[in-house]
This record gives sequence, C-alpha cells and structure tokens, in this order.
Amino acid sequence: MTTPPTATRPEHDLLGDRDVPAEAYYGIQTLRAQENFHITGVPLSHFPKLIVALAQVKRAAARANRRLGALDERRAEAIEQACAEIVDGDLHEHFVVDMIQGGAGTSTNMNANEVIANRALELLGHQRGDYEHLHPNNHVNLGQSTNDVYPTAVRLAMLLSFPALAEAMDQLIGTLRDKGEEFSEILKMGRTQMQDAVPMTVGQEFHGWATTIAEDVERLTRTARLFREVNLGATAIGTGITSDPRYAQLATAELSELTGIPFTVSADLVEATSDTGAFVTFSGVLKRIAVKISKICNDLRLLSSGPRAGFAELRLPAVQPGSSIMPGKVNPVIPEVVNQVAYEVIGNDMTVTFAAEGGQLQLNPFEPVICFNILESTRIMTRAMTTLAERCIAGIEVNREVVDGYVRHSIGVITALVPVIGYAAATDVASEALSTGRPVADLVLERGLLDERRLAGLLSPASMTRPVRPTATGTIPALAAEQEFGTAEEDEETREG
Amino acid sequence: MTTPPTATRPEHDLLGDRDVPAEAYYGIQTLRAQENFHITGVPLSHFPKLIVALAQVKRAAARANRRLGALDERRAEAIEQACAEIVDGDLHEHFVVDMIQGGAGTSTNMNANEVIANRALELLGHQRGDYEHLHPNNHVNLGQSTNDVYPTAVRLAMLLSFPALAEAMDQLIGTLRDKGEEFSEILKMGRTQMQDAVPMTVGQEFHGWATTIAEDVERLTRTARLFREVNLGATAIGTGITSDPRYAQLATAELSELTGIPFTVSADLVEATSDTGAFVTFSGVLKRIAVKISKICNDLRLLSSGPRAGFAELRLPAVQPGSSIMPGKVNPVIPEVVNQVAYEVIGNDMTVTFAAEGGQLQLNPFEPVICFNILESTRIMTRAMTTLAERCIAGIEVNREVVDGYVRHSIGVITALVPVIGYAAATDVASEALSTGRPVADLVLERGLLDERRLAGLLSPASMTRPVRPTATGTIPALAAEQEFGTAEEDEETREG
Amino acid sequence: MTTPPTATRPEHDLLGDRDVPAEAYYGIQTLRAQENFHITGVPLSHFPKLIVALAQVKRAAARANRRLGALDERRAEAIEQACAEIVDGDLHEHFVVDMIQGGAGTSTNMNANEVIANRALELLGHQRGDYEHLHPNNHVNLGQSTNDVYPTAVRLAMLLSFPALAEAMDQLIGTLRDKGEEFSEILKMGRTQMQDAVPMTVGQEFHGWATTIAEDVERLTRTARLFREVNLGATAIGTGITSDPRYAQLATAELSELTGIPFTVSADLVEATSDTGAFVTFSGVLKRIAVKISKICNDLRLLSSGPRAGFAELRLPAVQPGSSIMPGKVNPVIPEVVNQVAYEVIGNDMTVTFAAEGGQLQLNPFEPVICFNILESTRIMTRAMTTLAERCIAGIEVNREVVDGYVRHSIGVITALVPVIGYAAATDVASEALSTGRPVADLVLERGLLDERRLAGLLSPASMTRPVRPTATGTIPALAAEQEFGTAEEDEETREG
Amino acid sequence: MTTPPTATRPEHDLLGDRDVPAEAYYGIQTLRAQENFHITGVPLSHFPKLIVALAQVKRAAARANRRLGALDERRAEAIEQACAEIVDGDLHEHFVVDMIQGGAGTSTNMNANEVIANRALELLGHQRGDYEHLHPNNHVNLGQSTNDVYPTAVRLAMLLSFPALAEAMDQLIGTLRDKGEEFSEILKMGRTQMQDAVPMTVGQEFHGWATTIAEDVERLTRTARLFREVNLGATAIGTGITSDPRYAQLATAELSELTGIPFTVSADLVEATSDTGAFVTFSGVLKRIAVKISKICNDLRLLSSGPRAGFAELRLPAVQPGSSIMPGKVNPVIPEVVNQVAYEVIGNDMTVTFAAEGGQLQLNPFEPVICFNILESTRIMTRAMTTLAERCIAGIEVNREVVDGYVRHSIGVITALVPVIGYAAATDVASEALSTGRPVADLVLERGLLDERRLAGLLSPASMTRPVRPTATGTIPALAAEQEFGTAEEDEETREG
Repeated sequence: MTTPPTATRPEHDLLGDRDVPAEAYYGIQTLRAQENFHITGVPLSHFPKLIVALAQVKRAAARANRRLGALDERRAEAIEQACAEIVDGDLHEHFVVDMIQGGAGTSTNMNANEVIANRALELLGHQRGDYEHLHPNNHVNLGQSTNDVYPTAVRLAMLLSFPALAEAMDQLIGTLRDKGEEFSEILKMGRTQMQDAVPMTVGQEFHGWATTIAEDVERLTRTARLFREVNLGATAIGTGITSDPRYAQLATAELSELTGIPFTVSADLVEATSDTGAFVTFSGVLKRIAVKISKICNDLRLLSSGPRAGFAELRLPAVQPGSSIMPGKVNPVIPEVVNQVAYEVIGNDMTVTFAAEGGQLQLNPFEPVICFNILESTRIMTRAMTTLAERCIAGIEVNREVVDGYVRHSIGVITALVPVIGYAAATDVASEALSTGRPVADLVLERGLLDERRLAGLLSPASMTRPVRPTATGTIPALAAEQEFGTAEEDEETREG
Repeated sequence: MTTPPTATRPEHDLLGDRDVPAEAYYGIQTLRAQENFHITGVPLSHFPKLIVALAQVKRAAARANRRLGALDERRAEAIEQACAEIVDGDLHEHFVVDMIQGGAGTSTNMNANEVIANRALELLGHQRGDYEHLHPNNHVNLGQSTNDVYPTAVRLAMLLSFPALAEAMDQLIGTLRDKGEEFSEILKMGRTQMQDAVPMTVGQEFHGWATTIAEDVERLTRTARLFREVNLGATAIGTGITSDPRYAQLATAELSELTGIPFTVSADLVEATSDTGAFVTFSGVLKRIAVKISKICNDLRLLSSGPRAGFAELRLPAVQPGSSIMPGKVNPVIPEVVNQVAYEVIGNDMTVTFAAEGGQLQLNPFEPVICFNILESTRIMTRAMTTLAERCIAGIEVNREVVDGYVRHSIGVITALVPVIGYAAATDVASEALSTGRPVADLVLERGLLDERRLAGLLSPASMTRPVRPTATGTIPALAAEQEFGTAEEDEETREG
Repeated sequence: MTTPPTATRPEHDLLGDRDVPAEAYYGIQTLRAQENFHITGVPLSHFPKLIVALAQVKRAAARANRRLGALDERRAEAIEQACAEIVDGDLHEHFVVDMIQGGAGTSTNMNANEVIANRALELLGHQRGDYEHLHPNNHVNLGQSTNDVYPTAVRLAMLLSFPALAEAMDQLIGTLRDKGEEFSEILKMGRTQMQDAVPMTVGQEFHGWATTIAEDVERLTRTARLFREVNLGATAIGTGITSDPRYAQLATAELSELTGIPFTVSADLVEATSDTGAFVTFSGVLKRIAVKISKICNDLRLLSSGPRAGFAELRLPAVQPGSSIMPGKVNPVIPEVVNQVAYEVIGNDMTVTFAAEGGQLQLNPFEPVICFNILESTRIMTRAMTTLAERCIAGIEVNREVVDGYVRHSIGVITALVPVIGYAAATDVASEALSTGRPVADLVLERGLLDERRLAGLLSPASMTRPVRPTATGTIPALAAEQEFGTAEEDEETREG
Repeated sequence: MTTPPTATRPEHDLLGDRDVPAEAYYGIQTLRAQENFHITGVPLSHFPKLIVALAQVKRAAARANRRLGALDERRAEAIEQACAEIVDGDLHEHFVVDMIQGGAGTSTNMNANEVIANRALELLGHQRGDYEHLHPNNHVNLGQSTNDVYPTAVRLAMLLSFPALAEAMDQLIGTLRDKGEEFSEILKMGRTQMQDAVPMTVGQEFHGWATTIAEDVERLTRTARLFREVNLGATAIGTGITSDPRYAQLATAELSELTGIPFTVSADLVEATSDTGAFVTFSGVLKRIAVKISKICNDLRLLSSGPRAGFAELRLPAVQPGSSIMPGKVNPVIPEVVNQVAYEVIGNDMTVTFAAEGGQLQLNPFEPVICFNILESTRIMTRAMTTLAERCIAGIEVNREVVDGYVRHSIGVITALVPVIGYAAATDVASEALSTGRPVADLVLERGLLDERRLAGLLSPASMTRPVRPTATGTIPALAAEQEFGTAEEDEETREG
C-alpha cells in the first residue's frame, strides 16, 4: 500500500462514474453503499465469520459454475483463490459497508463481489478495476442473487459462530458442576418467594444452574441445525429464474464440502427466500438463554449480598476494587456485566422480531439488521458465559458459618418433622420459635416430641434434601424407591425444563 | 342455589375467621385471594382447560396417595369423584380467583383444594365447610405443594390447549394449499423490496404461506412436548421434603393414565421447580407464529389494496360493510384483526420474558402471569387462525385481469430472457421499456432478438417460474435436473425455514 | 326482556339480511362484527368508560348537527336522550363487540350507532329496527366517520380513566410519605450493587419511593393532556370531506361542554387522523410507571426477605396464609401481584408499539388493540397501586433489632469517619473489622482514634445521613450550607428524576 | 509515544500489583476493567461526547473543591488543564473500557480519573504513575463517587448529543415541508385500511409527515430538560456522606458555567441516585420517534412501489443500483435502512426497560448498558434522519400521470358529491362504477345528476380536500368558518398528536 491515499481509479455503474481509492479492493458499489449507509460505524469486518461465510458461498458458487461450464477454468481458479485468501483472514478490512444497510444485503453481496473480483484480477495479472477481464457481477456473482447468496452466507456465519457459544456454555456448565460437587455436602436454606423455605444443599443449587444451562446447549444446537437449510439457486424470488436447474444442488453440495456442514436445499424456495423464521427462532433461543443466565446472576448477586447486611452465603472472587469512597467494598461486577449482556440480547431479539414482521411479499429487506443483531447477541453472550465461568463461578466460596447459622436458626426445618410429629405440633413449635427466636430443635427436644438421636437423623442433610419414606423406626432413602418404580426418562423429546 | 346470597358459613385459617357465602364451594383462602387480587377481573374459570388440568392433577395425587396408603379409600373416592365432576365441566364458576395473583399460584391451588374438598364433603354426606371430615390441605393437598402442583397443572393445561391451535393451523394450511392449487396456473409479478421483480404463480405465493405455517405446526408440537416433563413430588423446592420417595413416580404415572399423555418426572427437581424455560420457549414459538401470520396478513392487505388505486391482485371476501361515509367501501377486516392478535401475542411474550427473568432462587413467584399470557396467546391465536381460514382465505379470488396486466407490462420479465439474449441487450430493452412505457415483448420482437414462438416459450409460466437449462434450441425443465442430482432433504432435523 | 331468546327481528345492510335477537338494542352490523371477531371474549362493555365516551361523542355530534340545522329537533332530542342514558350507565350490556376487532373501530362505532338509534326509536315511540324513522348511519352517525369519532372516543375514555390512576398513585404516595415520617429516625444500612454501603434512614428510603412515583403523577397528567386534541370533523382522512366547515369546532365545543374537558381541534387533521403518537406516549409513561413500581416491589420483597435467612428489615402485613406444606410461612403476595401487573403493562406497551408502527397511509387500522391495551394497562395499574398502598405499605413495620444490628456491625459506617481520621487509618480499621468480625466503633475507640463523645456524634443519624462540614471541633449541618448557596430548583421544567 | 509497546510501568491497587503499558494514560484499574469486561469491543471512546462530559464533570468538581479549599491550587490547575485538553478532543483513545461493564460505571469513572491524573502529572512535571504527587482517587475523584459523577456525566453526554438529533429532525421537517409546498396542488387518492378512500393533495400527505415529526422535536427537547437535574454531591447513596454541604451546589454551578447548561441539584438525592426514570422516558421518546419515522418509511416504500405493478405514486431518487440479476431495478434502500434503525431503537428501548427495572435498592448497577443504548439510539437516529432527508425526501418526484389516473378512476370521489346528490343516488353511481369500471364523473353527467360546471367545482382539489359548506348555489370554503368559530389552539399543553 505505497499508493498515496489520494490516488484513485475511476469506476462506473448504472448511476454513473465515481473515483474509488486506488488501494481499495472494493469498488464503486461498495463506495456508494458506504456513503448511503453511514449509520452505526460498525463495518462488516467487525464480524470476521460473516466475511468468511461470504467467501465460502462465493467459492461454492464458482465451483458449481465451473462444473456447469458456465465459468471458465482460469477465472474460476482466480475467484476460488481469492475466496480462499479471504477465508484465511486476508482482505477483511476491505469489507467496509455498515452492518445496518438498506437493500436486503445487496451492498454486502456487492462488497464481496468487488473485493473478490479485484483480488482475482490481481491474481490473473490485471489491475484492480479492469473488470472487462473479470467482473464482480458477471463472473463472481454468476447465477446468484443477493436474495439467495446473502441469507445463505448469514446462515453459514451463524453456523460458524454458535459453536463458540456452545463451548462457552459447556465451560460454564462444567464449572457449575464442579462447584456443585465441591459444595454437595453443605446444607443451606432454600427460599421461595424470598422467604425461608426448607433446607437443600449448596451443591443442589449449583447443580440446578448447570442443568438449566445444559438444556439450552441442547436447544441451541438443535435450533442451529435449521440454518443448514439454504436457498442457493433461488435467485431473485425463489423461482430460480435464470438459474440452471442443476445449480441449486451443485452449489449446495460444494458449500457442504467446503465447510464440512451438511447443507440442504429448501424444498419450497419461494417460502425460503422470504422467510426469516430460523433467525427468529434462533434469536428466541438466545433470549431464553439470556433470561436464564440473568436469573442465575440475579441469584448470585443476591446470595453474595452483604458482607454483613445481606444474605452473605457466597463470596464471589474480587476482580477489581469496588468503591473509592467506601473502603474495602467489593462489588459483584461480573454477574452485573452478564445481566447487562442478557438485557442487550433481549432487546436485540425485539429488533429481530420487528424486522422479521416487517418483511413484505417475496423478500425481507430487513435481513441486515437481523444478521447484525443475532451475530452480536451470539458474540456477547459467548464472551459473557466465558467471563462468568472464569472470573466468577470458578472462584466462588461458601461462607460456611453463615449458611450453617441460617439452617440452625431456621423455622423451616420444622417441615422435615411434620410427617413424624404431625402438622399441629409442628405449627405450635413454629409459632414459639418465631416469637421467641429460639431454635426449633431446642423446642422439639424440650417438649419431648423426639429424642436427640431421632431428631438428628431427621435433620440430617441426607434426610432433609431428598424424599424419605417415614416409618415407625426410621426412614427409607429415596434411592430404593427409585429402583422400585424406575424412571420414565427415556422419552428424549421430553427432556427439558 | 336457593340459599339467599346473604347466607354465609364461618371458616377459619391462620389469619382468623371469615364468613364465606354459603352457596360457595370455595372457602376462606379463596375468599381472601379474591379480595387481595382485584386486578384484571378475569377469573380462573375464563380458562376451562386450566380448571380441568387442576382437577386431573388433584385426582392423580389422590390416587397416588391412596396407593401409598396415605389417604383412606373413602376420602380418596370422594376426592376423585369431585375431581371427575370438575373435569366434566361442573363447578367451574367456583374458580373465582383473578388470573393475575401473587403467591406463585397458591391461591389457585387453594381454590382447587377448597372446591374439591367441599364437593367431596357433600358426596360424603357432610356440609360444606365441615373440614374436620375432609380437609382442603390435609387431604386434597396431601403430599403436594403449590410449587409442584401448580406448574404441573399449567403444563397440562397447555397440553390440553395447544392441539386446538395446531388444528386451526392445519385448517389454515389446508385452505392455503387448496387456494394454491386453485391458483397454480395464474402468473403474477413477484416483488422484492416492494419493487417489481420477476414472475411467479399466485399458487406459489399461497403455497409459500402454507409452507411457512406448516413449519410452525411442527415446531409447536415439538415444543409442547417439553410440557410433559413435570415436577410432581418436588414439594416445596424440589428436594421432595416430606414426600414419600415413591410418590413422584406414582403420581406422575397416574396423571399419565388419566390424561393419556406420557408424563415424566424431571431428573433435576430443584431446577425444574424454579425454571420457567419451557414456558419461555413455548411463548417464543407463539411469537414466531405471530410474526409469520402477521407477515401473511400484511401481504394480504397489500395485495388486496385498491380497488383502483392499489395492487388489486386479490379480492378478499366482504364480511361486513366498510365505511358509512364512503359508499361501497369494503375493508380487509379479517387480516386486520389477525394482525392485532399477532401484536397481542408479541406483547404477551414480552410479559412472559420479564416474568421469567424476575424469578429468584428456588421458585418463580410470577408463574401466574406467565400462565395467563400463554393460555391467552394460545387461545386468541387459535381463534385468529380459524377466522382467517374461514372468513378470509377460503373466499379469496384473484383479479385475473389485473395480475395478467402486471405481467404483460412488466419490465421484470426481461430477466427470463437474459440467459438467451444476453445482459447487455436485455438492459437496452429494459431502458426503452421504462422510458416509453412499451411492453418488453414488443420491443424484443421489433428488434428481432427472438422470434414469436421462442419468445412465447421463454415467457411461459412453466419457463419463468422455475429453473430452466438454457440450450441452443430450447430449455430443459427443472424436473430432469432434480432427478439427476437428487434432493438432500433426508435430514429431518434441518427441515425448516 | 320478556321476549324469548329465539325471537328475532330482520335487519338489512349492504351484504344482505340477517335476523337480530329481538331484545337486542344493537343491530345487524354489530351482529356481523360479533361473528367476525370472536377473539378475546372481552366485549366493549368490559370498559364502561369507553361506552360512556362513545355516548358523549355521539351526543356532542348530535348537538352540533342540530345547531347546524342538519338534524331536526325531534330526532336530535331522542338521540341525545339515548346517549344520556348510556352515560348514566344504562344499556352497556348491548356493547358486545370484541375489544380486538378489525376495521379500525368501525364495529365499535356501529355498535354505538345501533344501540343509540334503537333506544332513540323507542323514545320516539317506534320499534327497534324501524330505521326509516331514525337511522344509525344517517342520523346517529351524521357528519361523522369512524375515523374521527372512534379516536376521539378513545381519547375521552382515557381522559375519564386516568384520574383514577392518578388518585391511586396519590394514595400510594401519601401512604409512602406517612411511613417515611414514621420511620424518619430509624437508621439502616444503605446498599449499592447489593453490597453494604453507608447508613441512611428507613424514612429516606420510603421518601425516595414516594418521590419517584410523584414524578410520574406529574408526567402522567401532562401526557394525558395530549388526549385533549381531537380530530372531530376530520371525517374519512382528515380533509373533512362532506363535513360542514363549522362542524369540527362546534362538535368539539359541545364535547368540551358535556365533559368539562377543554378539547381542541387538531391543527393538522390529516396527521391527526393517522397518528397514534399520543397513545404511544401515554403507553410509554405507563411503562415507566410499571418499571418504577416494579423496582419498588422488588425492593420490598428483598427487604422483607427472611424471616431468618434474609434481609428481614421490613415486615409486610400478612394478607393470606403462605404455604400449606411449610407451617407459618407468609409470602409477599401483594408486591408479587404488583410486579406481575408491571410485567403485563410492559408487554402491553410492546403491543401498542407494534400496532402504532404497523399503521399505513391515512389511518391506523390497529387502533382497537391500542385502545384495549392502554385501557387495560390503566385499569390494572390503578388497582395495583391501590392494592399496594392499602394491603401492603400501610401495614409495614420495621424490624428495629435487625436494622440496628446491621448498622452496628457494618463496616460501611467507617466512611463517615474518613474526613476526620483519614482514609489510611479508616482502611486499616475496615480491614481488621472484616477479618475479625468486630464492630468498627470498638476498634476506633481501642486505637484511640477518637474519643467516645466525638465518635458518637459522627455516627449519629443526623451526621451520617446528610452532608456535614468537618471541622476541628465538630460539624456544621447541611442546613446552613443550603442557606448559603440557595437551591437552583426554580426551573419547573427540570424537576424530575 | 516513542516508548516501545512492551515497555510498562508498575501500578498498585487493593488487589495487588500490575504492569500497565508505559504509554498508557490510563492506569491499573482501567487495565483490570479491560480484562474483566471483554464484551462488545465498543470502547468508551466510541462516544466522544461521553468522554467530553466526563471531563467537564471532573473539571467542575475540581473547581468546586478548589473553592472549598479541599484541593490546592497547583493540583487543581493541573487537573483542570488535563480536563480541558480532553474536552478539546485529546486523549480520547485512552478511554478504553467496554461500554457494557459491571460496577455501575465505576470503571468508566476510574478510566477518567486515571487518564486525567496521569496527564495532570505530566503537566506538573512528573511521570505517569507517580500518584503520590497527584492521585486518581484522592485528588481527581475528591468528594465524588461514581454514583454521582457517572450519572451526571451520562446526563451531560445526552444533553450534548440530542441537539444533533433535533437538528437532523428539523432538517427532515424542513425538507418534508418544502416537498409539501411543491406538491400542494397535486390531487391524489387518500387511502384508509389500504383501500381507496377520498382525495387529498400530495402536499397534505408530506405536510402530515412534517407535523408528526415536529411534535417529536418538541417532545424530545422537553424530555431532554429532565437531564438537567443531577445528583452531584449525592456521593454513595444520596445522603451526601463525607461531602461538604456546600459541595453539591458549588459543583453543579461550576458545571453549569462550564457547559452553559442550567443544571440543578435534585431535591431528593436518595431517589435521584437510584432512579433511572429520565433515561427510560428519553428512551421512550426515542422509541416513539422510531415508530413514527418507521411508519413514514413504510408509506414511502409503499407509495413508490412499482414501477408498474405497484402504487407507483412517488419516485424516490436512485442512490445505488438495485439488483444485479434484474436489469434496471432500483430499490428504496434509504427508507429501508431507516426502518432498520427504527427497529434497532425499539430494541434498545427494551434493553433500557429491562436494565431500569432490574436496579435494586440505592443504586442501579445497570446504568452502563442504559447509557450505551440511549447514546447509540440517539446517534443512529440522528444519522438516519439526515440520510432520509438528504438522500431520499429531497429528491422525491411525483408520478403525476399515475396519481391523476387514480383520482380520475376512483370511486371514492363520489363521497364529495354525497351532500349534493344524496347518499342513495351516490351509492347507485358507485355500484355501477365498480361493476362497469367506468369513471364516476361520466356516470353522474350521464344521469343528469349535475351539470358539468357544478361537477367540476365539486371535484376540484379545493373542494375535495377541505370541509365545504354545501349551499344551493355553491360552497363556502373552510377559511370563513374558521374565522367564525375561532380556533381553540391556545392551550400549549395540548398541542400534539
């Protein structure tokens, strides 16, 4: 790039002539799009996987066209090579159009066509802009329409992006499960409606969080499969006008080979070209993940409230000083940032909903803002998950003294005695405990309702944190019962929450 | 009900004494809940399937308790009989608590417990309110907690409600497909970004709408399966405290038998008791359906705009006079009402999202508003689908003259000639057509670019509405091509849009 | 209504003949609308203020038409009398059309026209249905269009509805302020980011809640004024076609006189007829109120969490038993129901947003769903405010022992000493307090940093809960300072939060 | 910046030691925040007005502290100088923390404190990092808390940002009004519910759009005034602990002087410190603007649909080629991008709503995501408005032939004749026109209902596009009528839509 920045080359399109910066790989249509869409300041290159996806789709199209004899070997070779370079990470900075753009992605498609054409021209020994040798539309975009290329590329971009999210979720799940194991023997008070309820283990709480996220990895992965159905060959509106009848299958097969992802051609290309249902569904799953992770962070902030005037059950790792004005204060900044990511994702889903609803007739012109929002949601949720696992969950400690104290002083433990001492006696004890502040256990012993050994048994973690069969002499643990009745968990479809 | 309305019977609970209307089957806790929650004016009985679901869950619990020996035969029999009557539609008017209520559903559960208890008392020959013989809590609610009974009942209510929606969608799909067949030979202009694009058949458009809704029947049905996983036996927080270890499986099996729905017990009852993920997911699917149906109605209103200063392609059946001030005006009132249902459902989803996110720790106290919104969304969407199919789609006619005229005068048809006459010549013709207003076909013939027979072939519906392989002498239809390459549509997971 | 339900009278409209129930005051168009719009099951009569508003607008129109000589005295008199009866609460049950309806409110308008016409016919000694004497369209709807009458009636309905909300908010504010006074001397720990921060009074917290709601009463009232601008006389699209040029002002003046509300005619009737901005704005304010009241309820639930394993600062009044399974449990059901109302209102706002955005060209056909949602939001928010004030706030007690203990054991109080003992010494003390669990005050005295009297002064409520000027010998309270600099609060526009 | 990038300087905070890049003006706490909050990749510097606002607040605080004698002249001078440089645009690239961050803005505040401190150190002749001479907390942040500084800076940033939006809206309004003038004599068909209604002028339509946006400039400006109320001096939770009682007024006065904006101190600092109401309200206004501008763009896309198979009333300027596959196609890309901006803003409002609702107790920790979203919404809406005005509206042309044809062939014009020929005759004519396709005017003349001159008068633009008083001999225009009754538009409060 020794060319001085003021050097330009002339280019031409239907609207007339314009000077394009000489060092630019993009061309006149990209230039116009840059001027027309000065909106977010976030260029296409902000999402490298989208650039890679565009290049892969273009490469697949070139291969299909070569096999159909529509594109000569030499040009096909150059186009494929240019695409390969982009897949490897080159030239991304020449994808300059704003992520929010009019035209249903035409400018994104043309940005790709122009960069690929100009790089291919170079590979063929020509100058950038010498489109008579290899043309962005006639050759790079051959047999294609923005209306099939762009949604296909966005779908591929999502398929390239979501695995990192699934991985981050798996990491979080693993961390939560490890903590669940670590805390599996620590008894704490469970709470419903913010009121003390009955005991559980800290491990059960962490395990529950792991379970709820695990369900969503499954859901995410299933939903992402919807992106494997593409509309390559649909051309303008799904009727495939001007396309070779073999093209759709060929190009799709090439894309599958290039990416290792088993793509299929939609059975109803007219529907597929206007429908944004898969994006709405995926965004909905992201919203559901956001709701769940936000709930977990709400719980974490609540359970670590204090240190003295709060729940104070958990100690989150300190990752930065809290307040300058209040000495020693440390804040739950990691859950806080994750909450905010969740809110952002929920807002993004609303944007996607509006954009999907607004599309009319044979094409949804608002796919760019859909693309922007689901790529952004996927990325920030990925980072939030990793951040939460590494900078918060992994370092959480339980404040044993506090959680033990809650259980000891809790009135809720009386619930465990109800099957043995009866509801009436239990209510009496509860009332006295509430008014006097005395421990339930003391009152039960004092009244001679149970002897110390039996009481200890009933109030043991093992007894209070799972179902037990009350008998005259003791309890039968849940395990036996499960063996007796079996679990009906075979129906895979039902596994969820 | 010959008792004068002022007659009352005294009842008692932890907060003291109150007089309950003598003719009421509900009791003191329901009375308090009515007073505490004077909000929407929409009582539980507005959703009969919810009442039926509550009765079925209570019946299953009674059966399980009987089998476990926890409930004697006589009382169990009476409770089951009372539940059966409610399932059959009796006593619904005694479910009076407001759909929006605090307490995580406790008031709904108690309303059910009290109505069932009082009816069972009658069956046993006692007076309503004589709870020493059969008690709402001790007997009807035995071994249960609102926190397992209520979400289970809501899930069952959804499983009882969604089939009507799926059926209504199927009816709509059928109607759309019939129309698609009826209009399969009518050529029309497709449009992208509101601009004339290339031709398609009216049938393809209707078929596309059918396809997009069909995808959602599938999605709805799969998602509803999530409701089969229940947390019966979880009691207060999922630890199953006070419950017999055999109860969860037993009660769930009984519920399956009673309803014919294969329920399973959640593997992580702690998670299942606080999680509202299945509701969020289902609501998300309802939102997606709303987005799609709203898009279709937007299209219908657009395509039927006119009669003279609009698209005027379709004639919707007139179902009521339009304007009193403008003689002869007929409006697309059915699509309009469906649009509004869609907006309502989207808003309801937002409410569900907020409620799901707000639940803390071991229970989500906001399930009642979630329940209210998904039941309401399901119901109004069901009615909207039926209304749309019967009062609009079924009677749609195509304005042949108009759609033909659009195709004849369209410049977009030139696209079909590009592979034969070339892009440059096509652009020339398009420009002249645009500036002179003359038909593309005339200009092509005038310039001798094609003879009349060849032109007619290229502009035939068969040729313009699917991919064709251009040859020197003619075209090879898409069908052959498909045989050649096969379709890759086996992967069931991917089928979607 | 001695007529048997099967008795009917024939009526006729543009679409043909239909039998209307003989006892019905509504007519054929209402009948069709009932059939077309079987959606929510919530009829117009669910909102009496909307019925009253319709009748007032019709009455104003009749008066204007009489003054313009367009309507004869006898018919005008009968119409006005019929309207007056409806305003007084009669005949509401004949407003049967579903709140969600297509047709931009035409069915609502026709329901009103028909009921008024039939009642007027009776008053004139005719039979219902004898429209040749007095016609729903020609006389009751004279000079009107749904497109000006309906939005005007909805606006009036809002103006009749919001005062109850403002009153309920005032009641809540009053209750919060009373509690603020009651608790003005009780010191508690303030918290930021769920972590103990510095002391404040319980009164300051309640007062802050009162302030935040008070701002919204102001905002609500200002926003409601937007509803005073109406488009009467706009007729179909705002051009006033067919209307007498004097009609708009006359009808509006009559409406003002009838209601005591100073209405004005919009300066741009074309804009006014299609725009739904005032509804969006009002709904936005309702959403803001929802956000604030939800935040307050979140705080209430948090501060009353416990009784032993939570914050336990506040005791909310028990309004119903909590759990059947857990003896003695009482839940914050009132804040919970208010939270849910807030979620509902937020969802309703989303529906309004969608409906407003979807309106095209010269009219928004989705006003019925907008009307439904803002009337519903206003009503349930009104009831929620009253419920919260009366059934929760008024009975709140502070758990003195607990809040005192938090302050005494808090490390955060050290912040009050920083200006005197310095940041370094304060940090040292804080660290020791944290690690040893000892009170800050003890450590300060032990280290001789302050004498007992001075320490007591610095840790007094007066000193810790407002700015103080540190001096060698003591502190100068904030009051003096305020006198010195004055307050810049004159700019009324700025008063808010 | 000749220092090699690997050079570092050691810094220390409560959590320990870290090496900061030597060339960085930020310090250790910013470094930690960068690591903790790797989320969006959008740094603070993406919003220069936020950086300027932070510097102004810091400068005001330094001045206040100097006047109170709390900060010595030399350090104060250096701090003020550093702030002035930042206000002038220097050092922005050192504001590196992610816009979405935990900690309620602490990291943003510390980023500012550290950059200012290090630049001030340089000005005093010290090295960066030599905090013993001038400390980020002790001197730059003196008397401040993130909890008062950050919200104040965000408010100032909004006050610095919204004028550009108001200006862009004014430009758009002006452009719409100019077009309204230009098209004031062109008659067109108005449409309601997508059906032909009655005539209006194209000018009235453009004027209506101008009116609706003008209302929002007013609303925006009023709402922005809420940002003038700040909580400087609130310190941690609004009690002003540790602050000099004179500080709040002094610092606020300095800020007013520095910015020329009349700020006031909130009367209830406790409420002001936790409340985010002003942000919610402003975001709500942005949402309302989004709804309106989206509606306008929907109309533009609809009215310019075609060129042959659509409404084709308007020709939008071509700003870039449309489709590569369809020769000559030009798409409404500018309205499309504005629609998408509107959807983005609506989604952002949802994020703001969630974040506002989620804040608990004495502080809302989610202000960063609120700040991010309203700054972003303001910016992209500003750009969208300018883009729409300059690249679309200014170049719109009316397709005279088409709009004239619609009016000529419309049945709706019959409405204008109703007051003269009567409803019955009008209906007859309408029916015949609809079935035969013949023009209404021809039929009226043919039937001898009116003579040619009278008919021409009634169908003149002047007569059809405003109210007229029908007389035996002619019509009296609306103007006279207005003089007769006067306009009731004095009540400024009511002016809106």
